[in-house]
Amino acid sequence: MWHISNEFGGECYCPLCIKRFQDYLADKFDNDISKLNKAWWNTFWSHNYNSFSQIEPPFANGEITSLGLDLEWKRFTTWNMTDYMKSEIKLLKELTPEIPVTTNFMGLYGGLDYRVMAKELDVISWDCYPALHNQWESFTESMENNSFDHATMRSMKKDKPFMLMESAPGLVNWQQYNKVKRLGVHKLFSMQAVACGSDTVQYFQWRKGRGSFEQYHGAVVDHIGTDDTRIFKEVEELGTVLEKISKAAGTAIKAKAALLYDWDNRWAIEDIKGLSNETKKYNETCRDIYREFLRLGIEMDIIASDSGFMEYDIVIAPMLYMLRPGVADEMKAFVKKGGQLLATYLTGYVDKDQLCHLGGFPGDGLTELFGIASEEIDTLYPCDHNAALFKDGSIAEIKDYAETLRVNGARVIATYMEDFYKGTPAVTAKDYGKGTAYYVGARIAGSKMQEIFLEMAEKAGAEHKELPLGVEYHKRTAEGESYGFYLNNSEETKMVKNVTGINLLNGEKVNGILELDKYGVAVIEKKACI
Amino acid sequence: MWHISNEFGGECYCPLCIKRFQDYLADKFDNDISKLNKAWWNTFWSHNYNSFSQIEPPFANGEITSLGLDLEWKRFTTWNMTDYMKSEIKLLKELTPEIPVTTNFMGLYGGLDYRVMAKELDVISWDCYPALHNQWESFTESMENNSFDHATMRSMKKDKPFMLMESAPGLVNWQQYNKVKRLGVHKLFSMQAVACGSDTVQYFQWRKGRGSFEQYHGAVVDHIGTDDTRIFKEVEELGTVLEKISKAAGTAIKAKAALLYDWDNRWAIEDIKGLSNETKKYNETCRDIYREFLRLGIEMDIIASDSGFMEYDIVIAPMLYMLRPGVADEMKAFVKKGGQLLATYLTGYVDKDQLCHLGGFPGDGLTELFGIASEEIDTLYPCDHNAALFKDGSIAEIKDYAETLRVNGARVIATYMEDFYKGTPAVTAKDYGKGTAYYVGARIAGSKMQEIFLEMAEKAGAEHKELPLGVEYHKRTAEGESYGFYLNNSEETKMVKNVTGINLLNGEKVNGILELDKYGVAVIEKKACI
Amino acid sequence: MWHISNEFGGECYCPLCIKRFQDYLADKFDNDISKLNKAWWNTFWSHNYNSFSQIEPPFANGEITSLGLDLEWKRFTTWNMTDYMKSEIKLLKELTPEIPVTTNFMGLYGGLDYRVMAKELDVISWDCYPALHNQWESFTESMENNSFDHATMRSMKKDKPFMLMESAPGLVNWQQYNKVKRLGVHKLFSMQAVACGSDTVQYFQWRKGRGSFEQYHGAVVDHIGTDDTRIFKEVEELGTVLEKISKAAGTAIKAKAALLYDWDNRWAIEDIKGLSNETKKYNETCRDIYREFLRLGIEMDIIASDSGFMEYDIVIAPMLYMLRPGVADEMKAFVKKGGQLLATYLTGYVDKDQLCHLGGFPGDGLTELFGIASEEIDTLYPCDHNAALFKDGSIAEIKDYAETLRVNGARVIATYMEDFYKGTPAVTAKDYGKGTAYYVGARIAGSKMQEIFLEMAEKAGAEHKELPLGVEYHKRTAEGESYGFYLNNSEETKMVKNVTGINLLNGEKVNGILELDKYGVAVIEKKACI
Repeated sequence: MWHISNEFGGECYCPLCIKRFQDYLADKFDNDISKLNKAWWNTFWSHNYNSFSQIEPPFANGEITSLGLDLEWKRFTTWNMTDYMKSEIKLLKELTPEIPVTTNFMGLYGGLDYRVMAKELDVISWDCYPALHNQWESFTESMENNSFDHATMRSMKKDKPFMLMESAPGLVNWQQYNKVKRLGVHKLFSMQAVACGSDTVQYFQWRKGRGSFEQYHGAVVDHIGTDDTRIFKEVEELGTVLEKISKAAGTAIKAKAALLYDWDNRWAIEDIKGLSNETKKYNETCRDIYREFLRLGIEMDIIASDSGFMEYDIVIAPMLYMLRPGVADEMKAFVKKGGQLLATYLTGYVDKDQLCHLGGFPGDGLTELFGIASEEIDTLYPCDHNAALFKDGSIAEIKDYAETLRVNGARVIATYMEDFYKGTPAVTAKDYGKGTAYYVGARIAGSKMQEIFLEMAEKAGAEHKELPLGVEYHKRTAEGESYGFYLNNSEETKMVKNVTGINLLNGEKVNGILELDKYGVAVIEKKACI
Repeated sequence: MWHISNEFGGECYCPLCIKRFQDYLADKFDNDISKLNKAWWNTFWSHNYNSFSQIEPPFANGEITSLGLDLEWKRFTTWNMTDYMKSEIKLLKELTPEIPVTTNFMGLYGGLDYRVMAKELDVISWDCYPALHNQWESFTESMENNSFDHATMRSMKKDKPFMLMESAPGLVNWQQYNKVKRLGVHKLFSMQAVACGSDTVQYFQWRKGRGSFEQYHGAVVDHIGTDDTRIFKEVEELGTVLEKISKAAGTAIKAKAALLYDWDNRWAIEDIKGLSNETKKYNETCRDIYREFLRLGIEMDIIASDSGFMEYDIVIAPMLYMLRPGVADEMKAFVKKGGQLLATYLTGYVDKDQLCHLGGFPGDGLTELFGIASEEIDTLYPCDHNAALFKDGSIAEIKDYAETLRVNGARVIATYMEDFYKGTPAVTAKDYGKGTAYYVGARIAGSKMQEIFLEMAEKAGAEHKELPLGVEYHKRTAEGESYGFYLNNSEETKMVKNVTGINLLNGEKVNGILELDKYGVAVIEKKACI
Repeated sequence: MWHISNEFGGECYCPLCIKRFQDYLADKFDNDISKLNKAWWNTFWSHNYNSFSQIEPPFANGEITSLGLDLEWKRFTTWNMTDYMKSEIKLLKELTPEIPVTTNFMGLYGGLDYRVMAKELDVISWDCYPALHNQWESFTESMENNSFDHATMRSMKKDKPFMLMESAPGLVNWQQYNKVKRLGVHKLFSMQAVACGSDTVQYFQWRKGRGSFEQYHGAVVDHIGTDDTRIFKEVEELGTVLEKISKAAGTAIKAKAALLYDWDNRWAIEDIKGLSNETKKYNETCRDIYREFLRLGIEMDIIASDSGFMEYDIVIAPMLYMLRPGVADEMKAFVKKGGQLLATYLTGYVDKDQLCHLGGFPGDGLTELFGIASEEIDTLYPCDHNAALFKDGSIAEIKDYAETLRVNGARVIATYMEDFYKGTPAVTAKDYGKGTAYYVGARIAGSKMQEIFLEMAEKAGAEHKELPLGVEYHKRTAEGESYGFYLNNSEETKMVKNVTGINLLNGEKVNGILELDKYGVAVIEKKACI
C-alpha cells in the first residue's frame, strides 16, 4: 500500500497557482470571459472582468463579495490538489503497478471535495479523531455523528471496505479539551470503524515523540515506555478481538437508503448572503438525519447528488440548495419508478453557478415533483419558536428556518402553529408515479423526522430494526455470510431484541435477547443470510 | 433628481489622500506644527511632530494612541469625501441647474459627519434597514429607535421633507438573522417614514437579481416572478394608502424640542481612554431620550450642538462630552431667555481638540450655569447597581455611570442611595434667568427621565399627548392644514384618546377615541389647525 | 536613584535583532545546528535547519508550530532587552557610581523573565494596577492576588525592601471597567505594598495631563485643579500614616516557605499542545496556593526553581512542568534534610528544552522522591466534576485536571471518587530522609489544600496565625524590632486574636484583640522580637 502525502489541505496563493487558476477558469468557460461574467452575475456592482488574467483568488484584502469566485476557487483548489496527487500516483503506478494507493482523508474537512480525489485512489482511508465525552452533546450522539463520517468515507467506494488510517488509543492533543477516552471506549470506538466498513484499525502514533507539536498526542507506547499501561493493555485486548472477527474482513455494507451530501452544496450554503450564518448548519442537519436512520437500524450511503441514486429505495436530500445538472430529472425518475424521496427547506434555490432558479423554488422542475413552491423563507432567532401540527394531532418543534409554501398538487401533512403563517402548510407529500415525494418546509425536531422516515421505509419495504436508544447496528455481508455489529454507545446495559446467530467475541449463540454491557460490542455471525 | 454616488463610506489611505490629509492639517493649524502638537498634547509620550509631512493616518500597525490624530482623521475623511461629492455636484449643476441633487445616507453610520455633506445637497434621502422582530429589544423599541434615525435625517433640512431612498418590503440579506417582516409591518414601517417627514417610500430592489451578493435581498418581485406573492400584495396595498394621503406631501414637521447630537462628540466619546468601552453607549443614550419624548407625543429635532438652538423651548444635551466653540455661551443665553435645558454625566469634559477643561466639569463656564461641578465619574460593572432617591420618595435605577457632584447654587433633586457617595447629589436643577438648567449625574432609568422631561415640557408650555404605550405620533403641517399620524408599533389593539378629524385611510370621522389594530395606522386630517 | 527606561516590554523583529537571535542560538548550541535540531526535536515534521542563518523568529505568518523556537525566542527577548538595559546602566555607573538604579517592572507581565533583569538592578520597583472591586472575584481575593504579585517582586532581592514605583490614587484608564477605588481603599492598598516590603508609595501621576492617552488616568491633582478633592485628601491622609510608620523603612520580610514560580515554566506551559488552553491557569494556580498560605499567616517567598531553596522549611512547586537542571536533585536533598515539599499534577514532564522525560513523570529521578509515577492526565470539561476522598472521610472537589498515579513507595492520602479511575490514588505523601514529599495529582479545592499546608507547617514547626477571613498579615523585621501589618481586605469589621504591641497608627497598646474597621489597617510594633 502506498500512502500518498499526508492529510492534504490548505490553499495555494502563489503566482504559479494563480496562473493555473486563471487557466482553469478560461478552460471551464470556453475562453469566453462573458460566460464567466454571466455565470458569476458580475454585472451586479459592476464587477465584470475584461479578461481571465484580471482574476485573482479571493484574497482576504481583495475581492470577498463574489460568490462565483469563492466557489470556483474552492473547486479549483480541489482540482489543483488532485492534479498534484495524480502526478505522484502516476510515478508509483509506473514503478509498482501492483501496489494499491491511498491517502488519508479527514472526514468532513471542508477544504477539498474528497469525492474528486477518491476517484484516483484504490482504497479510501481516513483519520478519525472525534471529541468524545464532550460537553455539547451526549456520548451517544458523538458516536452517531462519527458514524456519519464513517459512512461518508465508506460510500466513496461503494461495496468496498475502507481503512481507519489514524486514530488515537487515548487522547489527542489539539482539541479544546483533550480528555482521555474512558475505559473500554477504545474498543467500542475501534469496532465502530469496523462495523462501518473499515478493514483496519490503525494508530497515529506507535510511541509518543519526546518533543515538538505532538508530544502529547495519544500513542500505544507512552513516555513512560512500558507495556503495562492502561492504554497499551486496551490496544492489546483489541488485537485479540480483531483476530476473532478476522473472517469479516473484506465484507461490505449494502445500503438501500441514501443521503445526498455534496461539498459543492456545502460551499454554496456557507457562502449564502442571507439566512443566518450561525444557524445554517448543513453538516449538522445531514448528521441529524443520518442519526434517525441509524436509530431505525437502516443503513445509509452518503453520496453525491449527481453520482446516481436510482438503485436506492429511499433518498433524503437535506438542504439541497444547489441542484447540479441532471439531479432534478433523476429525482423525478427515481420517484416515478417507486422511490421514496424527501427534501427540505432550502432545496433547489440555485443552479451549479449559484444563479437562482426562476419560477419558484425548488427549481429546475421540482415544484412539479413536490407539488409545492416555496414563497418565502423565514429565519428564526434562537429565542423564536414555532411548531408543526400534524394530521394525527402530534406536534413537532421548529427551529431556525421555516418556509411558507404554496401547494399545487401535494397533500398537506402538517401546518404551522404560530406566527402570521399559522395554519399554512409546513410538511407535504405528493404521490408521483409509483413513489412519493416529501417536502419538509421547516427545521423540525428529529423525533418527528424519524416517524416520517419510518413511514418511508415501510412504503419502500426497507428492512429496519427495533433498537434501544444508544445501540448502533451495522451489517457487513458477503456471499453466503453476514456479520451483525451491535455497539452499545452508552453507559447503561442494553437489551437488543430479535438477535440470532453466533457472537464471535465470546463464541456464544444468541437466540432472542442480546445483552450489551456499558460500551459493549457484539458481532453476530450468520450464514447464508443473503 | 440626481442621486450622487451610493452610500458614501470608507476611508482612503492612498498616498494622494495621505498628502491631502497633511495639507488639510497644515491649513487647519496655520502651517504651524507647534499648534498641532499642542492641540494633540503631543509632548505626552514624546509624540511631537517636526513637520506636517511626518504625519500618517492612524494605520492599524502605526500610531494608534493619538486621540487628536484619530479625530482629525475622521474629520478629514468627511471633508475629503464631501470635496469629491462637491466636484460631482458642480458638474451637474452646470449642466442641469434645475435638477435637485441628493445622496443616500445610512442613518447613524459612524464614518462620516453627514451634517457637513447635507449642506451640499438639495434634498436629504436615506436607506433605512432596521432589524425588526429581533431578540434584543421589543418591536416597539425597534420602531422607536428607527424613529430617532428618521428624525436625525429629517432635521438636517429643517421644515423640509426628506426621502426614504431605500427600504426592503420583505427582508434584507446581511443581518445576523434575516427575518422577514411580519404581515402588515411593511405598511406600518413605510408609513412611519412618511409620518416622520418623508415624501417618498422607495425600495431597493424592484426585482431580486439571480446572482451575486444581494440575490436574497428583499424586493418587490421575487425569483418566482409573479405578482401574487404576499410581498407584492403588501406593496400594492401601500400604493393605495399613499394615494389617500397624497395631499400631505410637502408638509413639514415642526419641533419645539431639540436633542443635541454631534458626530464629533460621538467620535470623541468612542475614543475616550477611560470609562468602559462596553457601556459608553452614546447613540443608545440619545435614542433612549428621544424615545421618552416620543412617548410624551413631543416632536424633537436632532441637531448639531453648534447649529443654533435659541428658537427651541426645550433642549436636551445627552453626554455632550465635547463642547464646540460657542456652545456653552449659547446654552447660557438659551436658559436665560427662558429655555429648559438638561445635560447629563460626561458633559463638557473637553474642548474641540479633546483637551480637558480645567477648573471643573462641565467646563467652559457651565459649572456656573448648572450650579454644580463633577468631581469624579464612577464606572459601574454590569453587576453593580445603584439608585437615585428623588425628593418625592420615588426611586430610579442607575446603571453604568455615576458622577459625584459638588453643588454650588443648584437645587438637589435626587441623591445616590448606595456606595460611598450615598446621600450625595445625583440630579440637580438651577433656575437661571427665566429658564432652568437640569443636570443628571448618572445614567438613570428612562421612565424617571420621562417624568423630568414632562416637568420641563409643562414649564415650557410645550404641547404633549397622552398616548398608549406602543403608539407613535407625529404631526405634519402646512399653512391651514395638519396631518396627525398614529402608528401602532405593537401587536395589540390600542385606543388613543382625544383624537378629532378625518382619518384619510378610511374616510371616517374620528371624534374622541381612535382605535388602532395591531400594526395599524391612521392619518387624521385637520383644517386650519395652525 | 536612576530609573532606567519605562515598563520594558515588547519584542523586536527587525533584521538586526533577528541576526542577534541567530547569534544567540549559535552561541547557546555551540555553533552546532544538529544540537539545536535535537533539542527542538526538529526531525518531527521534517523541521530540521541546516544552519543558524535559516532561523526566523516565530512570525505570525511563519513558523508557529515549533515549541523550541517559541521558548528560545522568549528567552532571547529577555536576554536582548537586558543587554540593552545593561548598556544604559553601564554608562550611568561610570558617571554616577554612587546612585542606585532601578526600572519599573509590571508584576506578572509575561514577556520578560524579570529575574534575569533583576540581577542588574540595585533596587526592585514595580507598577501596581490591579482591577479592584471587579465582578469576577471578591475584593478580598483581588487583594490577596495582588499580595502574590508584591511577594514575587519582593523576592527578587531577598531581605531587601522594594519600591512601589507607580500606583493610582483613584482609578486607571485602561481597564475593561475603570471603577474608582472606594473610600479608604487607597490607604489600604498603599499600606499593603508597605506590608509586603515596599519602602515607598509612589504615583503615576501627580496631575492629570489635559490631553492624550492618559488624560483620565488617576492622579493626585485632577483637572479641577484643587486640593480639596476626595482623592487629594486621601493622599494627604496617607502621608500622615506613612510618617507614623517611618521607622519600619528598611526592615525586611523573612519567609521560611517558598513557592517555585518560573517564567520559563510559564512559557512552556502556555505553549503545551495538549490539556486545555482555557484551563491551564498556571499563574492562577500559584496565586491560589499563595492565598492559602496568606490565610494561614505564613510568609512566602516566590522564587525561581533553580535559585536555591535549601534554606527554607516548606517548598511548594505548583505545576512545575519544566525541571531546570539540578532542580530535581535539590528537591531530593531538601526533603532528605527535613524539608516539607509539595508538588502537583503536571510536575516534571519536560527538561529545559521541553523534551519529555522518559521512564515516567515526574521525571529526572522524582518518581523515586515522590514514590509515584503519573500514567495519564485527564482534562476535564468545565461541566465535569470529580472529587478526592481523604482518609479522614473529608471530600475535596476536583476541577480541570486529574492524573492517574502508579504508587511505588508513597502513602495514599486521598483517592478519586468518580469516573473510571475511581478509587485510585489522587494525593500521596512519601517520607524521605527527614522530610516529606507530597504529590497532589489533581486540581483540588483550595480549602483542602490549606489543610495540607497546615499539616506541612506543623511538621516544619513553621510559625502560623489564626486570622479572620479577609485579614492579611505580614511582618517586617530588623535587628531587635518587628512591625506586624494587619490589613482588613473586607468591608466588615474584623477581630484579630492574640495581637500584642503598639499600634503605630493610633499609638494605642494592643494586648489581645485587635479590631479592624472596614478596609482598616494596623501596624503593631514590637521590640526585640527576633
